[in-house]
Amino acid sequence: MTQLLKVQNLFLSSDGFGAGEGQSLERPFGHANPAELASWAGATASWPNRTEPGGSRGLDDYFTRDFANNIGAEIMGRNKFSPYRGPHDLEWQGWWGDEPPFHTPVFVLTHFDRTSFTLSDTTFHFVSGEPAAVLEQARAAAEGRDVRLGGGVTTIREFLEADLVDTMHVAVSRGVTLGSGVRLWESPDELLDRFHLEVVPSPSGVVHHIFWRR
Amino acid sequence: MTQLLKVQNLFLSSDGFGAGEGQSLERPFGHANPAELASWAGATASWPNRTEPGGSRGLDDYFTRDFANNIGAEIMGRNKFSPYRGPHDLEWQGWWGDEPPFHTPVFVLTHFDRTSFTLSDTTFHFVSGEPAAVLEQARAAAEGRDVRLGGGVTTIREFLEADLVDTMHVAVSRGVTLGSGVRLWESPDELLDRFHLEVVPSPSGVVHHIFWRR
Repeated sequence: MTQLLKVQNLFLSSDGFGAGEGQSLERPFGHANPAELASWAGATASWPNRTEPGGSRGLDDYFTRDFANNIGAEIMGRNKFSPYRGPHDLEWQGWWGDEPPFHTPVFVLTHFDRTSFTLSDTTFHFVSGEPAAVLEQARAAAEGRDVRLGGGVTTIREFLEADLVDTMHVAVSRGVTLGSGVRLWESPDELLDRFHLEVVPSPSGVVHHIFWRR
Repeated sequence: MTQLLKVQNLFLSSDGFGAGEGQSLERPFGHANPAELASWAGATASWPNRTEPGGSRGLDDYFTRDFANNIGAEIMGRNKFSPYRGPHDLEWQGWWGDEPPFHTPVFVLTHFDRTSFTLSDTTFHFVSGEPAAVLEQARAAAEGRDVRLGGGVTTIREFLEADLVDTMHVAVSRGVTLGSGVRLWESPDELLDRFHLEVVPSPSGVVHHIFWRR
């Protein structure tokens, strides 16, 4: 079986930004409001961070429940893992508390060394190197399953430029514009030379963009 | 965790029929052409009966790859299992060959006794009784996972009437009309008193109907 590299449930503003400017401990998405970008996902029954029962089981729930489906590892950028730059603060163990929602090995891209650590069933590894080499490590750790490319947008752009992404799901919040920040695209059409694209508006108001390699 | 009872990937004609008239060994769906009703699913990468690599990974693939997601047992009607009526022909082991696509226990509703048998990782059990009692058996066999209600339409109607169905995905082929046969509904609106409904047209032409309990 092929091991795919997949972007899943990437939240994007209507003008193409995955995060705003000025990331900090208090504002992990900078001037963007993550609750606004994630509201469609948070309303579903299968949202991994859900703390109360209930939630919708319509179209959007297919996307949130597919998040962990056949995923054996995640790759994420340093800025998804932490608000800090430079050498690692060893006290910092990510934004997710004692039960991170990954449940697989996670490979954090960073130029600074750090020893791996485990929280519940998620182990964080800290790696540098070219995207292709990092993907090779993640594939080995995934033991035959697929690899999720978890973002942020800068990391996704690097892997797109290296032509390593097999499928990508981007959820565009029509009502949210950011104006500045970290941008995935000016238009999804930029990817049409290499990807099929289906654009599926959800009854919730979010617009699902589903890409797969030509 | 709640164990849901789920209808998944039920193929329906635009006029509400799940199968035509005159089921036989040669025509499992009667005068309906199953290839026509299933074409949207057969085109996807995750279609369980796929024999060649390739296939689309757009919206429709979310539905085909969700087919086995967290499913621990299936319930099906006698007419999905076999073209025969009356006492069982013990030579008949279903339509699916040596590798049935279920990979879980399957409970076949029938008034006629038959001993369970196993093909690959699918075990077929033959049960009678009220829908609620059969569901209880299937839930126990599913070991905490959900139960798929596999059809046909007559079986689904029985479980709907007993108010046991939690979620239902029906894929309506807009271009296919059957005129007669086994009917699920005159209109999906018949279910709106008890279910939420999202209607999602796919770029492939099929229209996904997603129901979940109010």
